[in-house]
Order: sequence, then structure tokens, then C-alpha cells
Amino acid sequence: MDFENFRRILVLYVGGTIGMKKNCYDVLEAAHNDFRAKIKSSSSLHDSKWARENLHGKLKENQMILPQSGNGQKILYEIIEYTPLLDSSNMTLKDWIRIAKDIEFYYHNYNGFIVLHGTDTLAYTASALSFMLNGLQKTVIVTGSQIPIFESRSDANNNFFGSLYICGSFTIPEVCVFFSNKLFRGNRVAKVCTEDLYAFDSPNYPALAHVGVGIKVHEYFIRKIDYAEKFSVYTDLNPHVAVIEFFPTITAEMLSAFLTIPKLQGVVIQSFGTGNIPSKLDLLEVLGAAVARCILIVNITISAKGAVSMSYATGKVLQDIGVISGEDLTVEAALAKLCYVLGLPGLTFEERKEAMRTDLRGEMTIQKYEEIK
Amino acid sequence: MDFENFRRILVLYVGGTIGMKKNCYDVLEAAHNDFRAKIKSSSSLHDSKWARENLHGKLKENQMILPQSGNGQKILYEIIEYTPLLDSSNMTLKDWIRIAKDIEFYYHNYNGFIVLHGTDTLAYTASALSFMLNGLQKTVIVTGSQIPIFESRSDANNNFFGSLYICGSFTIPEVCVFFSNKLFRGNRVAKVCTEDLYAFDSPNYPALAHVGVGIKVHEYFIRKIDYAEKFSVYTDLNPHVAVIEFFPTITAEMLSAFLTIPKLQGVVIQSFGTGNIPSKLDLLEVLGAAVARCILIVNITISAKGAVSMSYATGKVLQDIGVISGEDLTVEAALAKLCYVLGLPGLTFEERKEAMRTDLRGEMTIQKYEEIK
Amino acid sequence: MDFENFRRILVLYVGGTIGMKKNCYDVLEAAHNDFRAKIKSSSSLHDSKWARENLHGKLKENQMILPQSGNGQKILYEIIEYTPLLDSSNMTLKDWIRIAKDIEFYYHNYNGFIVLHGTDTLAYTASALSFMLNGLQKTVIVTGSQIPIFESRSDANNNFFGSLYICGSFTIPEVCVFFSNKLFRGNRVAKVCTEDLYAFDSPNYPALAHVGVGIKVHEYFIRKIDYAEKFSVYTDLNPHVAVIEFFPTITAEMLSAFLTIPKLQGVVIQSFGTGNIPSKLDLLEVLGAAVARCILIVNITISAKGAVSMSYATGKVLQDIGVISGEDLTVEAALAKLCYVLGLPGLTFEERKEAMRTDLRGEMTIQKYEEIK
Amino acid sequence: MDFENFRRILVLYVGGTIGMKKNCYDVLEAAHNDFRAKIKSSSSLHDSKWARENLHGKLKENQMILPQSGNGQKILYEIIEYTPLLDSSNMTLKDWIRIAKDIEFYYHNYNGFIVLHGTDTLAYTASALSFMLNGLQKTVIVTGSQIPIFESRSDANNNFFGSLYICGSFTIPEVCVFFSNKLFRGNRVAKVCTEDLYAFDSPNYPALAHVGVGIKVHEYFIRKIDYAEKFSVYTDLNPHVAVIEFFPTITAEMLSAFLTIPKLQGVVIQSFGTGNIPSKLDLLEVLGAAVARCILIVNITISAKGAVSMSYATGKVLQDIGVISGEDLTVEAALAKLCYVLGLPGLTFEERKEAMRTDLRGEMTIQKYEEIK
Repeated sequence: MDFENFRRILVLYVGGTIGMKKNCYDVLEAAHNDFRAKIKSSSSLHDSKWARENLHGKLKENQMILPQSGNGQKILYEIIEYTPLLDSSNMTLKDWIRIAKDIEFYYHNYNGFIVLHGTDTLAYTASALSFMLNGLQKTVIVTGSQIPIFESRSDANNNFFGSLYICGSFTIPEVCVFFSNKLFRGNRVAKVCTEDLYAFDSPNYPALAHVGVGIKVHEYFIRKIDYAEKFSVYTDLNPHVAVIEFFPTITAEMLSAFLTIPKLQGVVIQSFGTGNIPSKLDLLEVLGAAVARCILIVNITISAKGAVSMSYATGKVLQDIGVISGEDLTVEAALAKLCYVLGLPGLTFEERKEAMRTDLRGEMTIQKYEEIK
Repeated sequence: MDFENFRRILVLYVGGTIGMKKNCYDVLEAAHNDFRAKIKSSSSLHDSKWARENLHGKLKENQMILPQSGNGQKILYEIIEYTPLLDSSNMTLKDWIRIAKDIEFYYHNYNGFIVLHGTDTLAYTASALSFMLNGLQKTVIVTGSQIPIFESRSDANNNFFGSLYICGSFTIPEVCVFFSNKLFRGNRVAKVCTEDLYAFDSPNYPALAHVGVGIKVHEYFIRKIDYAEKFSVYTDLNPHVAVIEFFPTITAEMLSAFLTIPKLQGVVIQSFGTGNIPSKLDLLEVLGAAVARCILIVNITISAKGAVSMSYATGKVLQDIGVISGEDLTVEAALAKLCYVLGLPGLTFEERKEAMRTDLRGEMTIQKYEEIK
Repeated sequence: MDFENFRRILVLYVGGTIGMKKNCYDVLEAAHNDFRAKIKSSSSLHDSKWARENLHGKLKENQMILPQSGNGQKILYEIIEYTPLLDSSNMTLKDWIRIAKDIEFYYHNYNGFIVLHGTDTLAYTASALSFMLNGLQKTVIVTGSQIPIFESRSDANNNFFGSLYICGSFTIPEVCVFFSNKLFRGNRVAKVCTEDLYAFDSPNYPALAHVGVGIKVHEYFIRKIDYAEKFSVYTDLNPHVAVIEFFPTITAEMLSAFLTIPKLQGVVIQSFGTGNIPSKLDLLEVLGAAVARCILIVNITISAKGAVSMSYATGKVLQDIGVISGEDLTVEAALAKLCYVLGLPGLTFEERKEAMRTDLRGEMTIQKYEEIK
Repeated sequence: MDFENFRRILVLYVGGTIGMKKNCYDVLEAAHNDFRAKIKSSSSLHDSKWARENLHGKLKENQMILPQSGNGQKILYEIIEYTPLLDSSNMTLKDWIRIAKDIEFYYHNYNGFIVLHGTDTLAYTASALSFMLNGLQKTVIVTGSQIPIFESRSDANNNFFGSLYICGSFTIPEVCVFFSNKLFRGNRVAKVCTEDLYAFDSPNYPALAHVGVGIKVHEYFIRKIDYAEKFSVYTDLNPHVAVIEFFPTITAEMLSAFLTIPKLQGVVIQSFGTGNIPSKLDLLEVLGAAVARCILIVNITISAKGAVSMSYATGKVLQDIGVISGEDLTVEAALAKLCYVLGLPGLTFEERKEAMRTDLRGEMTIQKYEEIK
């Protein structure tokens, strides 16, 4: 049986709260091997009866049948579990690269991909994947949960089922994040709350889909893609990037200590409001000197929602010394974009600056709105 | 005439967008002296007719009568304009201290105080004032606007009138922030949006009052004070504090560069989710070494809403090396509290740690809710 | 075994989407007897392993053990299924009475009660129960779901588990509604959306509890009760009540047709804004004539949120002809209260009017806020 | 001077809170003639200095110059005040018709139209205008305020200025409602709150524009029009329509009393949830008999947000007896549409039914979303 008429999804179970269990000290720990068994035994995530009656044992150990069909097709998914499972607060570029390479490796065998991930740095991974996956024409959904799937009360089932069902029913050629009944563009999300189950939001871009009694996909918000473009995965990320947040007690000495770290090549600065920093000469000098050393500096706002507008007074000064406007980038997307742009081969410093100014994957707002100030 | 039966408010016009004007290059600039004239000529902010008819020229140049009475009393306010006016992204500790001292100087002559301030660092100033003003028994409201009062369309009138009216009608013995029809506790707010007029929010504490057709003050959320405590102003703030945000590409080298800045005495770290950092040994060692050098480190979440819970695994490790849990402090309140606590005279390092763990001005949530995890 | 150390909950499964199944025509129908089996087989709702190992077969067919303990006590619940199951859009006063009597019958044997109910008239039933259950000292939670528990994707599990867990862990002596992670006062809710899973809201009163990673109960919003008051159930509801909504094409003829229906004794009118109706004399005459015939008329707003304020002009006119202000009552609470108040024995018309003006079960806001207009 | 290079707007000041004043009994009353003087004296609504210097007395008494230009053009507006001013809770079809006729009369002389209106039935008027104005190619904005413009604290200035500025800067060929910084499609709004300044919302359709520091117009949500279609105004509205809301104590007798009112030709029924009514035979018979008498019955939901889905069980029964699905129509739009459709000349009953099923002015959602249930 080759499952030709099935909609096939690959699930990369990377790690995170979703598959954790409390150990004897009541501390949550990654539970190896138990996750798949839990899924397999859950009647809402795997239709064992249908599989038994129709597939006659042809289902492999790591294959599951979603109990609900999407657009008339059965949804079959397979889970690949990372060893060891990754704590998202520990994840680094090499983990992002591994996920991207796995999607590349399996790209032509599946209709869509789901990444099960811890919530802490999920927005970073989703952003990074959006840049690494060039010419993506299939749905990639990053999800996870605030409470483990092993708990009686959990958001895991809902988030996982929703991701599987959307992935199995629609083609949304983006790296998405699904959480708490909303589908977002991946490089637009932030973890906005530590306690609520509604943990993710997309402050500067509308949701791509809402799940209620039915599922509503908002097509006009989904990125239009060029189907002629070939899918390719880019993995030469540059790790020498950092984030600095401005605050009233910041000194040139502090800023300088950071910006002179050996090898540093890119920095996201989070400034006040629409892109303002203290207008002390020494701070500007430190920033200017960094730009002169070819450190790519991107300016975004520290506010949860909104954009910098560097055409204004203080912003203008930054632009003059070569700081790039990050528009309405989240800090997660800004950092991931820097890793990507600074890793692109054979570009001059000016070309990298230009790449940072360009909306590459829908991560930045370029006048979607007619706007008057 | 001694204005005995008036409710008297002092307005410290410190600076900010609220009083700016576009210069010939279409750039906003502080407009000296024009602000008071603008207020005086605005029929919704000053009742010149009533003043003329009833006060017979006894009103001084900088005195205004609010056209609406609060609780049956006329509201008289005076504006003191700072020279030069301050751009809030440039404000430092000495500016916070100046404001606090001005409130101290005039404390017994007025029923309440309003600080007109730029929005960029307004949350920092409000937080700092809340710590500096010990035993506060009068209403202090910090406000400003997203659009100058000189523009035809502006939120300035609304924010200023609302602040005056609340200050003139109620006694809310806190440093508050009023913006876009909501009154918040000052050390709970953040500037959450650069573009909307609804620019401030209080993610972890409910609003103290709502303004609609009427005004609703939610008394049960207002801090209960000890009226026996004497008002005093504390101004020895310690400026040697900083904020570091965690991100996936952070290295021990970066962290170390920051934490070994000469004179540094306090650091706010913004960690992932409920207080997690990458569990690499070298990062922990750098943090541990900083604590060993008596640098006070407070851990808060990078998420817009929520708290760290350091009783858990990764959080526990931080606690073990002496990092303090900042609970649900905002970054603004955490920094301001560090400045305050590190400036208190004669305390040991342990006593300062303990002070950071204590809810001093309603800035941190101590089990207001019965909660089960 | 007497389950002495257990927290015991009685579940009245009255009907509703939560327990429906699609029939062969793809139409949802009440599925008799299947519900309990489904619960029993759900590992997140019943801990069969624990029961087997610890209770040695002492658990009856309709008894379940919640897999999570609340406050250190095992939670045992029993399900009583109504025959036939009720479609909530068909429910009438006799169904409300039956539920109230069941709670009365079992009151002393259980620590709390859950009513599983269709969503369409859930707000009516919750409101009615709040009036019928005098001196309630135990938690009653009405809940249901937007999607059947038999579907792979459903809010049923979440709503039911949350209700059981809150009921088993806290004592909230009110008729509550739990839906989509929020606990509300029952006589304050409305079904605000047909499509979202977040289907209920409480426009004029804050939530009593929020469920996230943990559960936060907001004690200051829970009704303070008099523990000396004895629990009693009042079931003589008066069915001769109706709701009329105002609209611009309404005529005295229409109003009269409604108000002269034989036996009618109470009417809720939903007026514009803060309680205004067209000031045509003939409409007022029809209303006045109805009041003269001892029809109890209560005025509430058609707006989703807010209150009527009948001290104002148009409102005043209504008050003068004897129409009662319903303050911020929902239409569901207003109708249920009329049924209750008109069923109370031995009261004069004026006493019934007075009862309608009184906040009986926290259903109406009596100046909880200091408010200035 | 012919004001050729000006953007010209006509303001129909119909009535409402916006222009009211408190009389000696502290009761709000329409203040004739004072409104225009107030506007003229308000520096944020009229640029008298510019007019004096540039127009040399050519401005008529009822003409004003907005102090801010839109798209480089001066905005000139004229106010026509209705006599008497109308209390919106008293407004009827003849008032809607008058407004429509006024817009028709002045259509070619102005670039846009603003209707200043009371909030109570504003949503009805906006809905009705949307149907009456066929082939509209200019912007019509209905607005008002919760607090009179004569009060020191008021939302009037903000709502009026925003409406003028949008009308003067963009062409949005719809009947819109502007309130509290949001522009909505007029036949989608409801007055959702009696107390907040944010009094209107559009539950089933996104805002057309947001006003913050700048103004964002969401073009993809604005109705695409056929510029070949000629503008015409349709005023033969049928007044014999009514609204009936379902509730648990409703009887066939009540329903019948309403549906047999002489001359009645159309009825909006507000049913439970997704369109359910009690499935008692007698109720259905009464409804069926009404349809048989050629009363056009439209079914909408009583919920604040969402749609009926009459393909389901109970809904199906209603469809079978000839009740029309109102989809996600608000009650205001449903009633206005009935008045319009029942007034169209020369249609059969079936054609009118079909017209009710058709999205005529963007008032009903026809699969804008790909949706799976």
C-alpha cells in the first residue's frame, strides 16, 4: 500500500513542554518514546479502528491516521522524534539548521510539515525557518503547548490536532505558527504570555486562519508565491549576532562593551517608541564606530506592537550613521533575518544592508495600507 | 483670594510630544512657552469666562480653572514648565530625581500632581517615581500624548483633561499613568504600541479606573496605604544598572562583556518564558561570577505578560546561584526598583536582595489570587 | 467503601451539543447512553487504572474518578443522564425546575454540581437556577460545548474537565458558567458568538476565575454569602412573561398586540441605548395601560454591554408610568428574574416591582464602583 | 471664489447627543443654532485665521475650513442643520428618506457626506442609507458622540474631526460609520455599549480603517464598486416590518399576536445560536401560516456575533416552511433590508425572498473565507 490517495504529513517532534512528563521530583522532563505511544492511544489523534479495518497492518509503527478527513482525503502522519529532545531555551542555530535540513530531506515525500517545539524560543525557530526555506510551496506549521499532552488538562491535543488538520486540508505555503485556535505567519509571532493558553500573538500582522466550530482561512493575508521558484534550503546562518535593548541608564561604555565583542557582525537594537535612542553623542559615536567596522545594525522598537519610523528626527540621526530601519520586525524575526542575511555568500556590506531593508518572507510590512500621517 | 475652596493641582510640564510643534523642516520640536498659551486659549481646558467673572484678575499667569468641577469643587491648576523641555528618550535618573523633588517641594500646597511627559520612557519615570515617593497620600498622574496638542487631531486634550479631572475629583494615593481613557498603576505600565492612541497597557494588573460617559474608579484595585506613614522623597538612586535580554545566539562572551562593565551593580535579565535561560554551563558561570561580585541580578520574563516562576527546573538553577525572581515585574519597574534598592543606604547585599523580593509599591504580584497549578 | 475522603460531584447531563453525534444524514442528534461510555473511555476524564487498583470494583457504573486531584483530594463524579436528552432551544420552565429539584434532592450528598447543557439557552437556565437556588452554599457550574465530545476536535473535554476540576477544588457558592477557560457568574452571561469556541461572555461583570497554565480564582468578585441562610429551592416560576425588543418601525399596534396577550404578567423591554424608546404618545399609552393592568415591565438596553439609566429624560418618562429599571441585567437574567419574582407567593404588585429593583443574586450592578457622571 | 481646488464635504446635522446641551433641569436637550457656532469657534475644527487671510470674506456663514489638509487639498465643509433636530430613538423611515434625499440633492456638489446622528438608532440609519443609495461612488460617513460637544470632556471632536478628515482625504464608496478611531461599514455595525466611548463595533466584518498616529485604510475590505453604475436614490421603503426575538417562554399565542398584526409584510426573527427556535409544532405552524400570507420572514441569530446556518436540522425545518436565512446580518441591517426589499416595485414574493438572500451592499457574508466545517 503506498498511501497514494492520502494526504501525508511529517511531524518533527523536536522537543518542548508538549511531550514532557513530571519526574519523581515533580519537575517536567522530556519523556523519550512515550510521546508516540500517547498519540497512538489517543482516539482523537489516531483512528486505530479505521487503520485496522482498512490498512490491514500496513501502517508502520510511526504512522498515524487522523480521525478526521480534510477535503475528502484521509490524513496520514508520521512522527520523527529528535534524540535527544531539545529544550527550546537551549536551542541554537544548529538546531534550526537541522530542522530545515530534515524538511528539505523529506520535502517531496509529504504534503506538509509540522514541527513540535517548546514555546520559549518557538518564535525564533519559526522566523529562522521562514528565511531558510526558499521557495516554499508546502505548509509548515510550528506548534507546541503550554501544558504537556500527558496532563489531563492540556492545550496539547487542541494545538496538535488543529495543526494536523489545517496542514492536511489546505496548502498555505508559509512557515506558520498554530496556537490556541489561531494560525499565524511564523516570522510575525511572539510569545506574549507565560500563563495563558493563548500564549502567542502576531502584533503587526493579522492571523492567517481562525479555528472555531469551523475553520476560516483568510486567503488575502497569505503570502502570494511564485510557483516557478524552486524550493531550496539555505543553512549557512551566521551566529555572530546579538540583541541590545535600550534603557535610561545605558552608557556608551555598556554599549561599547557589547559592540566590541570579537567576531560580532550583526546587532538588533531595540529602541524606544518609533525608534528613538538617547541622543547623547557618545552613544551615537559607539554605534557609528560599529557600523564603520561593518557591523550590521538593525533598529526595531521595544514596544510590543508597531514600527520604527526612521524618517523622523532622532531616527534620522541613526539612519545617517548607517543603522538600518527594521520597520515592524519582531525581535525574533530581526535576529533570524540577520543570521540569514549575514550568512548569504558573496554579498557586500551594502548589499546585506539592502537585503535587511527588503521584505523577504512577509516578515516586514511594506505599505500594505494606504496611510497618511 | 486664597483659593481655599478649590481643589488645587500642580502640573509639571516636563516635555514630550504633547507640547511639540513641527518646525520648518516638518520635524517635531519642543515648543517653549507656547504650551501654556495653548491651554489658556482652549475652552475645554480653561474656563476664562468663569475666572473673569468670579476671580476678578486674581488668577496668576500660570493658573487655570478646569471648566468642569469635581465633587462640587472648582479645580484650579498651575503649570510649571521645565527649561529646557526634556525629550523622554534622553531622560536619565537626574530627571526622575528632579521631578520627585519638585513634587516634594510643592507637596503640601496641592491636592494632586500631574506630570506631562514624553511617551517613550514614561513607564520608566512612572515606575521610578513610585519608588521615590515614600508614604504618598496624594494622587500623582503621569500622562502625555501620541500627537501634539497643537495638531487639530490629537489625544492630548483627552489625556490631559482626564488626568486633571481624576486628580481633581478623587484621591488615589499612587503614582498613576492615565492614557486613552484608562488609569493604571504607574509601575505596572508599558508602552505597548507605537502607532495606536491606546499606547499604554498594564499587562499584569487591572486598570484602576475607566473613563467612558462616566468615570468608574475600581477601589478594590487601589493600593491600601498607611496614613500614619509620613511622606518623604528618596532620591539617592543608583545609576549603575543595566538590562540584558536573552536570545538564542547569546554567548558567555557577550554576557561577560556586559556583566564586567566597571561599577555595574545591578542587572535585569529578560529570560525566555517563565524564566528560562540556555542551560549552558558557561552562561551560568558568568552569571554566578557576577553575583559573587555582588551584582544584584533580577530575572523577569521577556514575554509582554506574565511572570517568571523560579521554583521550576531551569529557574531553580538561577535561584541557586543567587539570581532574584522578579515575578511579574515589567522591565521598567525592575530597572527602576534596582536603582532604588541599590541606592538605599546601609544595606547589606543580602538585604538588598530581600528588598528586591518584596512588593514595595504594588509593583509585583504577591498572591492576589488563590491559585492552583 | 463510602468515598468519605473524596470530593464528590454530581453531573446532570441534561442535553446539548456536547453529547450529540451525527446521524446517517450528517445531522447532529442526541446520543443516548453513549456519553457516559465515551467519558469512561477517555483517559483525561476518568482514571480507570487508579480506580481498578484502589477501589477494587467498588466504583458504580455511573461513577468516574477525575485523573487529577484538587487540593489533595480525589475527585469522584457521577453522571445522571436525562431521558430524553433535551435540546436547549426547546427547554422551558419545567426543565429549569427539574434541574433545580434534582440539585435539591442530591444537595447534601455532593460537594458540587455540574449541569451539561446545550449552548442556545444555557444563559437562560443558568440565570433561572441562580434565582431558584436560595441560600446556595455549594458550587454549581453550567457548561456545554460548541462541538460534540465525539468529534476528534472539540471543546467538550476542556469545558467539562475544567468544570469538574474547579468544582472539585474550590467552593464558589454561585451558579456559574464555565466556558473556554473562563468561569463566569451564571446570571451575567450571554452567548455572544455562534462560531467561536469562546462562545460566552459576561459583558457587565468580570470573570470569577481564569484557567491558564494554572487556575486563578478572583475571590473579590465572588458573591459573599450568608452561611446562616438555609438552602432551599424555589420552583413556582411564572411562565407568563415575554420579551419585546424596540426597533424604529415599531407601532403602538404591534406593542399592543403583544401586551394584551391573555395571562401575560411580565415583560422585558429592550430599549435603545441607555433605556430610550420612541417618545410617541401612543406607545407610552400602551405601556402605561399594561402597567395599569398590573403587567410588570422591566426596561433593559438592547446594547450588548451596559445599563439603562432611567433618571434621564426619556427614561424618566418610562419610570413615571411605572416601568422598572433593569439596570445592567442581561435579557436572560431579566426574563428569569421576572419568572421568579412573579412566582413568589403573596406579594403585592408594588412588592414585586420592588423585588425587581433589588439585586437578589448578584445579577444586577448596584454601585460597585464609585462613579461620577 | 468657487472653491474649485477644495475638497468639499456636506455635513447633515440631523440631531443626537453630539449637539445637545444640559437645560436648567440638568437634562440634555437639542441646542438649536448653537452647534455651528461651537464648531466655528473651535480651533481644531475650523481654521478661521487661514480663512480670513486667504478667502477674504468669501466663506459663507455655514462654511468651515478644516485646519488640516488631506492629500494636499484644503477641506471645506458646510453644515446643514435639521429643524427640528431629531432624537435618534424617535427616528422613523421618513427621517431616513429625508437624509437620503438630501444626499441625492447635493450629491454632485460635494465630494463626501457626513451625517451627525444620535447613537441610539445610528446603526439602523446607516444600514438603511446603504440600501437606499444605489451606485454610491462617494464617501458617506455617519457619526455622532456619546458626550455632547459642549462638554469639556467629549468624544465629539474626535469623531467629527476624524470623519471630516477621512471624508476629505479618501474616497471610500460606502455608507460608513466612524466612531472611536475606527471606520466601519455602516450596515455591519451595532451599538455595543451604552457607557464606553468605544460604543460601536462591527461584529462580523473587519474595520475599513483605523486611526492612530496615522490613518490606515484597509483597501481589501472596502467594497469594490462598478463605476459604470449610475447613482440613484431609492426611497420607497416599506414600513410594515417588525422584529421578534425568541425566548424560552414564548408561546404560539404570542407569536401569533405579532404575526397577525394588520398590514405586516416582513419580520426579522432573532433565534437562538445558529438559527434555532423551539421545535414545537404550534410555533412552526404560526410561522408557516405567516409565510403563506406572504409575510417575508428572515432568520438571524440573537448572538452578538456570528451567523445562522439553516442547512442544519432545526434550521432546515424553518427553511422548509419558507423562512429566509439572514446569514450574519445584524438586526439593524436585516430590518433595513426588509424595508428596502419590500418596497422595491413590481417584484413577486419569491423575487423578494431571493433579494433577501442576496448580498446587496456588503451587508451579508458570502463565503469570503474558504471554510470547512
